Amino acid sequence: MAEPEAICRYLFGNDRRQLLQGLNVSISAGPTREPIDPVRFISNRSSGKMGYALAQVARQMGANVTLISGPVSLSAPPGVKLLQVETTQQMYEAIMAGIAAADIYIGTAAVVDYRAALPESHKIKKQADQAIISLQKNIDIIAAVASLPNKPFTVGFAAETQGLEEYALDKLNRKNLDMIAANWVGNETEGGFDSDQNALQVFWHGGRQTLDMTSKLQLAEQLLVLVAQRFADKSATN
Amino acid sequence: MAEPEAICRYLFGNDRRQLLQGLNVSISAGPTREPIDPVRFISNRSSGKMGYALAQVARQMGANVTLISGPVSLSAPPGVKLLQVETTQQMYEAIMAGIAAADIYIGTAAVVDYRAALPESHKIKKQADQAIISLQKNIDIIAAVASLPNKPFTVGFAAETQGLEEYALDKLNRKNLDMIAANWVGNETEGGFDSDQNALQVFWHGGRQTLDMTSKLQLAEQLLVLVAQRFADKSATN
Repeated sequence: MAEPEAICRYLFGNDRRQLLQGLNVSISAGPTREPIDPVRFISNRSSGKMGYALAQVARQMGANVTLISGPVSLSAPPGVKLLQVETTQQMYEAIMAGIAAADIYIGTAAVVDYRAALPESHKIKKQADQAIISLQKNIDIIAAVASLPNKPFTVGFAAETQGLEEYALDKLNRKNLDMIAANWVGNETEGGFDSDQNALQVFWHGGRQTLDMTSKLQLAEQLLVLVAQRFADKSATN
Repeated sequence: MAEPEAICRYLFGNDRRQLLQGLNVSISAGPTREPIDPVRFISNRSSGKMGYALAQVARQMGANVTLISGPVSLSAPPGVKLLQVETTQQMYEAIMAGIAAADIYIGTAAVVDYRAALPESHKIKKQADQAIISLQKNIDIIAAVASLPNKPFTVGFAAETQGLEEYALDKLNRKNLDMIAANWVGNETEGGFDSDQNALQVFWHGGRQTLDMTSKLQLAEQLLVLVAQRFADKSATN
Protein backbone atom coordinates (compact mmCIF):
# COMPACT_ATOMS: atom_id res chain seq x y z
CA MET A 1 0.00 0.00 0.00
CA ALA A 2 1.33 3.46 -0.91
CA GLU A 3 2.14 5.87 1.90
CA PRO A 4 2.53 9.63 1.27
CA GLU A 5 6.29 9.44 1.41
CA ALA A 6 6.32 6.59 -1.10
CA ILE A 7 4.20 8.76 -3.37
CA CYS A 8 6.65 11.64 -2.94
CA ARG A 9 9.59 9.36 -3.74
CA TYR A 10 7.73 8.20 -6.83
CA LEU A 11 6.83 11.70 -7.96
CA PHE A 12 10.44 12.82 -7.61
CA GLY A 13 11.56 9.86 -9.65
CA ASN A 14 13.40 7.82 -7.05
CA ASP A 15 11.43 4.61 -7.15
CA ARG A 16 8.70 3.77 -9.59
CA ARG A 17 8.57 0.17 -8.35
CA GLN A 18 7.14 0.91 -4.95
CA LEU A 19 3.87 2.72 -5.57
CA LEU A 20 1.69 -0.38 -6.17
CA GLN A 21 4.15 -2.93 -4.72
CA GLY A 22 2.47 -6.25 -3.97
CA LEU A 23 -1.06 -5.06 -4.79
CA ASN A 24 -3.32 -7.19 -6.98
CA VAL A 25 -4.63 -5.08 -9.83
CA SER A 26 -7.30 -6.37 -12.22
CA ILE A 27 -7.74 -4.43 -15.48
CA SER A 28 -10.29 -4.99 -18.25
CA ALA A 29 -9.42 -3.81 -21.76
CA GLY A 30 -10.51 -3.73 -25.36
CA PRO A 31 -13.96 -4.25 -26.83
CA THR A 32 -16.21 -7.25 -26.47
CA ARG A 33 -18.00 -8.91 -29.37
CA GLU A 34 -21.55 -10.20 -29.37
CA PRO A 35 -22.31 -12.72 -32.11
CA ILE A 36 -25.35 -12.23 -34.35
CA ASP A 37 -24.43 -15.45 -36.19
CA PRO A 38 -21.09 -17.26 -36.74
CA VAL A 39 -19.92 -14.47 -39.08
CA ARG A 40 -21.55 -11.22 -37.98
CA PHE A 41 -21.20 -9.51 -34.62
CA ILE A 42 -21.85 -6.30 -32.71
CA SER A 43 -18.82 -4.61 -31.16
CA ASN A 44 -17.53 -1.34 -29.77
CA ARG A 45 -14.68 0.85 -30.92
CA SER A 46 -11.73 0.19 -28.64
CA SER A 47 -8.09 -0.47 -29.50
CA GLY A 48 -7.31 -1.66 -25.95
CA LYS A 49 -4.31 0.69 -25.86
CA MET A 50 -5.35 2.51 -22.65
CA GLY A 51 -5.93 -0.74 -20.73
CA TYR A 52 -2.70 -2.33 -21.96
CA ALA A 53 -0.76 0.86 -21.06
CA LEU A 54 -2.27 0.78 -17.54
CA ALA A 55 -1.34 -2.90 -17.20
CA GLN A 56 2.25 -2.23 -18.29
CA VAL A 57 2.74 0.72 -15.92
CA ALA A 58 0.97 -0.95 -12.98
CA ARG A 59 3.34 -3.90 -13.38
CA GLN A 60 6.32 -1.52 -13.47
CA MET A 61 4.99 0.00 -10.23
CA GLY A 62 5.17 -3.43 -8.59
CA ALA A 63 1.58 -4.69 -8.87
CA ASN A 64 0.52 -8.24 -9.71
CA VAL A 65 -1.54 -7.45 -12.79
CA THR A 66 -4.31 -9.51 -14.40
CA LEU A 67 -5.46 -8.11 -17.75
CA ILE A 68 -8.83 -9.38 -18.99
CA SER A 69 -9.00 -8.44 -22.64
CA GLY A 70 -11.41 -8.63 -25.54
CA PRO A 71 -10.09 -9.12 -29.12
CA VAL A 72 -7.36 -6.55 -29.88
CA SER A 73 -4.12 -6.64 -31.87
CA LEU A 74 -1.80 -5.97 -28.92
CA SER A 75 0.60 -8.24 -27.04
CA ALA A 76 0.44 -8.66 -23.27
CA PRO A 77 2.99 -6.44 -21.47
CA PRO A 78 5.85 -8.43 -19.82
CA GLY A 79 4.92 -9.95 -16.48
CA VAL A 80 1.19 -9.36 -16.92
CA LYS A 81 -1.27 -12.27 -16.72
CA LEU A 82 -3.50 -12.03 -19.81
CA LEU A 83 -6.98 -13.61 -20.00
CA GLN A 84 -8.50 -13.36 -23.48
CA VAL A 85 -12.27 -13.27 -23.86
CA GLU A 86 -14.77 -12.41 -26.54
CA THR A 87 -18.26 -11.73 -25.22
CA THR A 88 -19.35 -9.51 -22.33
CA GLN A 89 -20.55 -12.57 -20.41
CA GLN A 90 -17.12 -14.24 -20.83
CA MET A 91 -15.43 -11.05 -19.64
CA TYR A 92 -17.73 -10.89 -16.61
CA GLU A 93 -16.95 -14.49 -15.65
CA ALA A 94 -13.17 -14.06 -16.11
CA ILE A 95 -13.16 -10.90 -13.97
CA MET A 96 -15.39 -12.32 -11.26
CA ALA A 97 -13.30 -15.52 -10.98
CA GLY A 98 -10.37 -13.48 -9.61
CA ILE A 99 -12.02 -10.42 -8.11
CA ALA A 100 -11.93 -11.58 -4.46
CA ALA A 101 -8.13 -11.26 -4.49
CA ALA A 102 -8.08 -7.87 -6.26
CA ASP A 103 -7.13 -4.71 -4.35
CA ILE A 104 -7.83 -2.46 -7.31
CA TYR A 105 -10.11 -2.98 -10.32
CA ILE A 106 -9.82 -0.70 -13.37
CA GLY A 107 -12.50 -1.16 -16.01
CA THR A 108 -11.25 0.30 -19.30
CA ALA A 109 -13.01 -2.25 -21.51
CA ALA A 110 -15.63 -0.91 -23.89
CA VAL A 111 -18.05 -3.76 -23.31
CA VAL A 112 -20.99 -4.17 -25.65
CA ASP A 113 -23.97 -3.57 -23.42
CA TYR A 114 -26.50 -5.46 -25.55
CA ARG A 115 -26.24 -8.91 -27.10
CA ALA A 116 -28.38 -10.51 -29.80
CA ALA A 117 -31.38 -12.03 -28.03
CA LEU A 118 -31.28 -15.09 -30.31
CA PRO A 119 -27.91 -15.55 -32.00
CA GLU A 120 -28.10 -17.94 -34.98
CA SER A 121 -25.86 -21.00 -35.08
CA HIS A 122 -25.65 -20.83 -38.90
CA LYS A 123 -24.85 -17.90 -41.13
CA ILE A 124 -28.02 -15.90 -41.85
CA LYS A 125 -28.72 -15.49 -45.58
CA LYS A 126 -29.56 -11.95 -46.60
CA GLN A 127 -32.93 -11.64 -48.20
CA ALA A 128 -35.20 -8.81 -47.19
CA ASP A 129 -34.32 -5.16 -47.80
CA GLN A 130 -35.05 -4.45 -44.15
CA ALA A 131 -34.39 -6.53 -41.08
CA ILE A 132 -34.32 -6.10 -37.32
CA ILE A 133 -32.10 -7.52 -34.61
CA SER A 134 -33.64 -8.05 -31.19
CA LEU A 135 -31.23 -7.22 -28.39
CA GLN A 136 -31.04 -8.20 -24.74
CA LYS A 137 -29.18 -6.07 -22.19
CA ASN A 138 -25.90 -7.53 -20.91
CA ILE A 139 -24.79 -7.59 -17.30
CA ASP A 140 -23.16 -4.35 -16.12
CA ILE A 141 -19.69 -5.63 -15.15
CA ILE A 142 -18.36 -2.62 -13.27
CA ALA A 143 -21.59 -2.17 -11.33
CA ALA A 144 -21.37 -5.84 -10.37
CA VAL A 145 -17.77 -5.40 -9.18
CA ALA A 146 -18.60 -2.24 -7.23
CA SER A 147 -21.56 -3.87 -5.49
CA LEU A 148 -19.50 -6.70 -3.99
CA PRO A 149 -19.44 -6.71 -0.16
CA ASN A 150 -15.62 -6.47 -0.11
CA LYS A 151 -15.25 -4.59 -3.34
CA PRO A 152 -11.83 -3.60 -4.63
CA PHE A 153 -10.98 0.08 -5.17
CA THR A 154 -13.02 0.45 -8.35
CA VAL A 155 -12.07 2.76 -11.22
CA GLY A 156 -14.38 3.22 -14.18
CA PHE A 157 -13.98 4.86 -17.55
CA ALA A 158 -16.54 6.92 -19.45
CA ALA A 159 -16.28 7.70 -23.15
CA GLU A 160 -18.81 10.32 -24.13
CA THR A 161 -19.80 12.37 -27.14
CA GLN A 162 -21.69 14.95 -25.07
CA GLY A 163 -22.31 15.99 -21.43
CA LEU A 164 -18.97 14.47 -20.31
CA GLU A 165 -18.84 15.75 -16.73
CA GLU A 166 -22.53 15.22 -16.06
CA TYR A 167 -22.48 11.60 -17.31
CA ALA A 168 -19.19 10.82 -15.57
CA LEU A 169 -20.37 12.11 -12.16
CA ASP A 170 -23.69 10.32 -12.57
CA LYS A 171 -21.85 7.06 -13.37
CA LEU A 172 -19.46 7.54 -10.42
CA ASN A 173 -22.35 7.86 -7.98
CA ARG A 174 -24.93 5.54 -9.51
CA LYS A 175 -22.51 2.63 -9.85
CA ASN A 176 -20.79 3.17 -6.49
CA LEU A 177 -17.33 3.65 -8.09
CA ASP A 178 -14.31 5.08 -6.27
CA MET A 179 -13.00 6.97 -9.26
CA ILE A 180 -13.94 7.61 -12.88
CA ALA A 181 -11.79 8.72 -15.81
CA ALA A 182 -13.74 10.38 -18.60
CA ASN A 183 -12.79 11.28 -22.14
CA TRP A 184 -14.42 12.67 -25.27
CA VAL A 185 -14.81 10.32 -28.21
CA GLY A 186 -15.96 10.54 -31.79
CA ASN A 187 -13.57 13.30 -32.76
CA GLU A 188 -10.14 12.54 -34.22
CA THR A 189 -8.52 15.55 -32.58
CA GLU A 190 -9.61 14.49 -29.12
CA GLY A 191 -7.70 11.21 -28.86
CA GLY A 192 -9.42 8.08 -27.55
CA PHE A 193 -10.13 4.92 -29.57
CA ASP A 194 -7.31 3.98 -31.92
CA SER A 195 -5.16 6.98 -31.03
CA ASP A 196 -1.90 6.64 -29.10
CA GLN A 197 -2.83 9.80 -27.23
CA ASN A 198 -5.66 10.74 -24.95
CA ALA A 199 -6.71 13.25 -22.30
CA LEU A 200 -8.78 12.47 -19.21
CA GLN A 201 -11.00 14.22 -16.71
CA VAL A 202 -10.69 12.24 -13.47
CA PHE A 203 -13.38 12.47 -10.78
CA TRP A 204 -13.64 10.92 -7.32
CA HIS A 205 -15.76 11.64 -4.26
CA GLY A 206 -14.52 15.05 -3.15
CA GLY A 207 -12.01 15.74 -5.90
CA ARG A 208 -11.14 15.95 -9.56
CA GLN A 209 -8.12 16.39 -11.75
CA THR A 210 -7.53 17.09 -15.43
CA LEU A 211 -4.86 15.01 -17.16
CA ASP A 212 -3.88 16.86 -20.34
CA MET A 213 -3.48 15.27 -23.79
CA THR A 214 -0.40 13.08 -23.82
CA SER A 215 0.67 9.55 -24.73
CA LYS A 216 -1.44 6.75 -23.24
CA LEU A 217 1.65 5.47 -21.38
CA GLN A 218 2.22 8.88 -19.73
CA LEU A 219 -1.49 9.12 -19.01
CA ALA A 220 -1.47 5.62 -17.46
CA GLU A 221 1.34 6.69 -15.15
CA GLN A 222 -0.46 9.87 -14.08
CA LEU A 223 -3.74 8.04 -13.52
CA LEU A 224 -2.08 5.26 -11.49
CA VAL A 225 -0.42 7.86 -9.22
CA LEU A 226 -3.92 9.27 -8.55
CA VAL A 227 -5.28 5.75 -7.98
CA ALA A 228 -2.46 4.92 -5.55
CA GLN A 229 -3.08 8.15 -3.60
CA ARG A 230 -6.83 7.61 -3.35
CA PHE A 231 -6.39 3.91 -2.56
CA ALA A 232 -4.00 4.81 0.28
CA ASP A 233 -6.39 7.47 1.62
CA LYS A 234 -9.34 5.08 1.49
CA SER A 235 -7.41 2.26 3.16
CA ALA A 236 -6.26 4.67 5.90
CA THR A 237 -9.86 5.65 6.73
CA ASN A 238 -11.18 2.08 6.81
CA MET B 1 -2.06 -11.47 -70.24
CA ALA B 2 -0.97 -15.05 -69.46
CA GLU B 3 -0.43 -17.44 -72.35
CA PRO B 4 -0.26 -21.23 -71.82
CA GLU B 5 3.52 -21.27 -72.15
CA ALA B 6 3.85 -18.49 -69.57
CA ILE B 7 1.71 -20.59 -67.23
CA CYS B 8 3.98 -23.60 -67.83
CA ARG B 9 7.07 -21.52 -67.14
CA TYR B 10 5.46 -20.32 -63.93
CA LEU B 11 4.40 -23.78 -62.82
CA PHE B 12 7.90 -25.10 -63.38
CA GLY B 13 9.29 -22.27 -61.34
CA ASN B 14 11.14 -20.32 -64.01
CA ASP B 15 9.40 -17.00 -63.74
CA ARG B 16 6.86 -16.04 -61.15
CA ARG B 17 6.87 -12.44 -62.37
CA GLN B 18 5.25 -13.06 -65.70
CA LEU B 19 1.91 -14.66 -64.94
CA LEU B 20 -0.04 -11.45 -64.25
CA GLN B 21 2.48 -9.07 -65.80
CA GLY B 22 0.98 -5.68 -66.51
CA LEU B 23 -2.58 -6.63 -65.53
CA ASN B 24 -4.59 -4.36 -63.25
CA VAL B 25 -5.90 -6.38 -60.32
CA SER B 26 -8.36 -4.94 -57.80
CA ILE B 27 -8.76 -6.83 -54.51
CA SER B 28 -11.14 -6.11 -51.64
CA ALA B 29 -10.16 -7.35 -48.17
CA GLY B 30 -11.09 -7.36 -44.51
CA PRO B 31 -14.42 -6.63 -42.87
CA THR B 32 -16.50 -3.50 -43.14
CA ARG B 33 -18.04 -1.74 -40.17
CA GLU B 34 -21.52 -0.23 -40.01
CA PRO B 35 -21.96 2.34 -37.22
CA ILE B 36 -24.92 2.04 -34.84
CA ASP B 37 -23.73 5.18 -33.05
CA PRO B 38 -20.25 6.79 -32.66
CA VAL B 39 -19.14 3.93 -30.36
CA ARG B 40 -21.02 0.78 -31.40
CA PHE B 41 -20.93 -0.93 -34.77
CA ILE B 42 -21.87 -4.11 -36.63
CA SER B 43 -19.04 -5.98 -38.33
CA ASN B 44 -18.01 -9.33 -39.77
CA ARG B 45 -15.24 -11.69 -38.75
CA SER B 46 -12.37 -11.20 -41.17
CA SER B 47 -8.68 -10.74 -40.49
CA GLY B 48 -7.99 -9.62 -44.07
CA LYS B 49 -5.14 -12.15 -44.30
CA MET B 50 -6.44 -13.91 -47.45
CA GLY B 51 -6.92 -10.63 -49.35
CA TYR B 52 -3.54 -9.23 -48.27
CA ALA B 53 -1.84 -12.52 -49.27
CA LEU B 54 -3.51 -12.37 -52.71
CA ALA B 55 -2.39 -8.75 -53.10
CA GLN B 56 1.21 -9.64 -52.19
CA VAL B 57 1.42 -12.62 -54.56
CA ALA B 58 -0.41 -10.85 -57.42
CA ARG B 59 2.15 -8.03 -57.13
CA GLN B 60 4.99 -10.58 -57.20
CA MET B 61 3.40 -12.03 -60.36
CA GLY B 62 3.71 -8.63 -62.03
CA ALA B 63 0.23 -7.15 -61.57
CA ASN B 64 -0.58 -3.55 -60.70
CA VAL B 65 -2.54 -4.20 -57.51
CA THR B 66 -5.09 -1.97 -55.77
CA LEU B 67 -6.16 -3.29 -52.37
CA ILE B 68 -9.37 -1.82 -50.97
CA SER B 69 -9.43 -2.75 -47.30
CA GLY B 70 -11.69 -2.41 -44.30
CA PRO B 71 -10.16 -2.01 -40.81
CA VAL B 72 -7.56 -4.73 -40.17
CA SER B 73 -4.23 -4.84 -38.33
CA LEU B 74 -2.10 -5.65 -41.38
CA SER B 75 0.35 -3.53 -43.38
CA ALA B 76 0.04 -3.10 -47.13
CA PRO B 77 2.36 -5.47 -49.05
CA PRO B 78 5.24 -3.68 -50.86
CA GLY B 79 4.25 -2.10 -54.15
CA VAL B 80 0.50 -2.46 -53.54
CA LYS B 81 -1.79 0.59 -53.62
CA LEU B 82 -3.86 0.49 -50.42
CA LEU B 83 -7.22 2.28 -50.08
CA GLN B 84 -8.58 2.13 -46.52
CA VAL B 85 -12.33 2.28 -45.96
CA GLU B 86 -14.75 1.57 -43.13
CA THR B 87 -18.35 1.09 -44.31
CA THR B 88 -19.70 -1.04 -47.14
CA GLN B 89 -20.80 2.08 -49.01
CA GLN B 90 -17.28 3.54 -48.76
CA MET B 91 -15.82 0.25 -50.03
CA TYR B 92 -18.28 0.22 -52.93
CA GLU B 93 -17.33 3.76 -53.93
CA ALA B 94 -13.57 3.12 -53.67
CA ILE B 95 -13.85 -0.04 -55.79
CA MET B 96 -16.11 1.52 -58.41
CA ALA B 97 -13.85 4.57 -58.80
CA GLY B 98 -11.13 2.35 -60.28
CA ILE B 99 -13.04 -0.61 -61.71
CA ALA B 100 -13.05 0.55 -65.36
CA ALA B 101 -9.28 -0.02 -65.50
CA ALA B 102 -9.35 -3.40 -63.73
CA ASP B 103 -8.66 -6.60 -65.68
CA ILE B 104 -9.36 -8.80 -62.66
CA TYR B 105 -11.46 -8.15 -59.54
CA ILE B 106 -11.16 -10.44 -56.52
CA GLY B 107 -13.69 -9.81 -53.74
CA THR B 108 -12.35 -11.32 -50.50
CA ALA B 109 -13.86 -8.67 -48.24
CA ALA B 110 -16.44 -9.86 -45.72
CA VAL B 111 -18.70 -6.87 -46.20
CA VAL B 112 -21.49 -6.28 -43.72
CA ASP B 113 -24.61 -6.71 -45.79
CA TYR B 114 -26.92 -4.66 -43.56
CA ARG B 115 -26.37 -1.21 -42.03
CA ALA B 116 -28.28 0.50 -39.23
CA ALA B 117 -31.25 2.21 -40.85
CA LEU B 118 -30.88 5.25 -38.59
CA PRO B 119 -27.39 5.50 -37.07
CA GLU B 120 -27.28 7.87 -34.08
CA SER B 121 -24.86 10.81 -34.07
CA HIS B 122 -24.47 10.62 -30.27
CA LYS B 123 -23.75 7.63 -28.07
CA ILE B 124 -26.98 5.84 -27.21
CA LYS B 125 -27.54 5.46 -23.44
CA LYS B 126 -28.52 1.98 -22.39
CA GLN B 127 -31.84 1.88 -20.60
CA ALA B 128 -34.33 -0.82 -21.52
CA ASP B 129 -33.65 -4.51 -20.96
CA GLN B 130 -34.60 -5.15 -24.57
CA ALA B 131 -33.95 -3.11 -27.67
CA ILE B 132 -34.10 -3.52 -31.41
CA ILE B 133 -31.93 -2.25 -34.24
CA SER B 134 -33.59 -1.62 -37.59
CA LEU B 135 -31.39 -2.61 -40.50
CA GLN B 136 -31.31 -1.65 -44.15
CA LYS B 137 -29.71 -3.89 -46.77
CA ASN B 138 -26.42 -2.65 -48.23
CA ILE B 139 -25.48 -2.64 -51.89
CA ASP B 140 -24.10 -5.98 -53.14
CA ILE B 141 -20.62 -4.92 -54.27
CA ILE B 142 -19.57 -8.00 -56.21
CA ALA B 143 -22.91 -8.27 -57.99
CA ALA B 144 -22.52 -4.61 -58.98
CA VAL B 145 -19.01 -5.26 -60.34
CA ALA B 146 -20.12 -8.38 -62.23
CA SER B 147 -23.06 -6.58 -63.83
CA LEU B 148 -20.90 -3.86 -65.43
CA PRO B 149 -21.02 -3.87 -69.26
CA ASN B 150 -17.24 -4.33 -69.51
CA LYS B 151 -16.83 -6.24 -66.29
CA PRO B 152 -13.40 -7.42 -65.15
CA PHE B 153 -12.77 -11.15 -64.64
CA THR B 154 -14.66 -11.39 -61.36
CA VAL B 155 -13.71 -13.75 -58.54
CA GLY B 156 -15.92 -14.07 -55.46
CA PHE B 157 -15.44 -15.72 -52.10
CA ALA B 158 -18.02 -17.61 -50.09
CA ALA B 159 -17.63 -18.42 -46.40
CA GLU B 160 -20.27 -20.87 -45.29
CA THR B 161 -21.22 -22.86 -42.22
CA GLN B 162 -23.35 -25.35 -44.19
CA GLY B 163 -24.20 -26.32 -47.79
CA LEU B 164 -20.85 -25.02 -49.07
CA GLU B 165 -20.98 -26.30 -52.65
CA GLU B 166 -24.65 -25.55 -53.15
CA TYR B 167 -24.32 -21.95 -51.91
CA ALA B 168 -21.09 -21.38 -53.83
CA LEU B 169 -22.51 -22.59 -57.15
CA ASP B 170 -25.69 -20.59 -56.59
CA LYS B 171 -23.63 -17.45 -55.90
CA LEU B 172 -21.41 -18.07 -58.96
CA ASN B 173 -24.44 -18.22 -61.25
CA ARG B 174 -26.80 -15.75 -59.60
CA LYS B 175 -24.19 -12.99 -59.41
CA ASN B 176 -22.65 -13.64 -62.83
CA LEU B 177 -19.16 -14.32 -61.41
CA ASP B 178 -16.34 -15.94 -63.37
CA MET B 179 -14.99 -17.91 -60.43
CA ILE B 180 -15.78 -18.48 -56.76
CA ALA B 181 -13.56 -19.71 -53.94
CA ALA B 182 -15.48 -21.24 -51.05
CA ASN B 183 -14.40 -22.19 -47.55
CA TRP B 184 -15.96 -23.49 -44.36
CA VAL B 185 -16.07 -21.12 -41.41
CA GLY B 186 -17.07 -21.23 -37.77
CA ASN B 187 -14.81 -24.14 -36.91
CA GLU B 188 -11.28 -23.57 -35.60
CA THR B 189 -9.90 -26.68 -37.29
CA GLU B 190 -11.11 -25.57 -40.70
CA GLY B 191 -8.99 -22.44 -41.09
CA GLY B 192 -10.58 -19.21 -42.32
CA PHE B 193 -11.03 -16.00 -40.28
CA ASP B 194 -8.03 -15.25 -38.07
CA SER B 195 -6.11 -18.37 -39.05
CA ASP B 196 -2.94 -18.22 -41.13
CA GLN B 197 -4.14 -21.34 -42.95
CA ASN B 198 -7.13 -22.10 -45.10
CA ALA B 199 -8.47 -24.55 -47.69
CA LEU B 200 -10.62 -23.63 -50.68
CA GLN B 201 -13.06 -25.25 -53.07
CA VAL B 202 -12.80 -23.30 -56.33
CA PHE B 203 -15.62 -23.38 -58.88
CA TRP B 204 -15.96 -21.81 -62.33
CA HIS B 205 -18.27 -22.41 -65.28
CA GLY B 206 -17.30 -25.87 -66.43
CA GLY B 207 -14.70 -26.72 -63.81
CA ARG B 208 -13.66 -26.98 -60.20
CA GLN B 209 -10.55 -27.59 -58.13
CA THR B 210 -9.85 -28.33 -54.48
CA LEU B 211 -6.98 -26.40 -52.89
CA ASP B 212 -5.96 -28.29 -49.77
CA MET B 213 -5.29 -26.75 -46.36
CA THR B 214 -2.08 -24.76 -46.49
CA SER B 215 -0.76 -21.28 -45.63
CA LYS B 216 -2.76 -18.36 -47.03
CA LEU B 217 0.31 -17.28 -49.04
CA GLN B 218 0.58 -20.71 -50.70
CA LEU B 219 -3.16 -20.73 -51.25
CA ALA B 220 -3.01 -17.24 -52.80
CA GLU B 221 -0.40 -18.48 -55.26
CA GLN B 222 -2.42 -21.56 -56.22
CA LEU B 223 -5.61 -19.52 -56.62
CA LEU B 224 -3.89 -16.86 -58.75
CA VAL B 225 -2.50 -19.54 -61.06
CA LEU B 226 -6.10 -20.74 -61.58
CA VAL B 227 -7.28 -17.15 -62.08
CA ALA B 228 -4.53 -16.49 -64.65
CA GLN B 229 -5.44 -19.68 -66.54
CA ARG B 230 -9.15 -18.93 -66.64
CA PHE B 231 -8.53 -15.26 -67.46
CA ALA B 232 -6.34 -16.30 -70.40
CA ASP B 233 -8.95 -18.81 -71.62
CA LYS B 234 -11.73 -16.26 -71.35
CA SER B 235 -9.73 -13.56 -73.11
CA ALA B 236 -8.86 -16.03 -75.89
CA THR B 237 -12.54 -16.78 -76.53
CA ASN B 238 -13.66 -13.15 -76.56
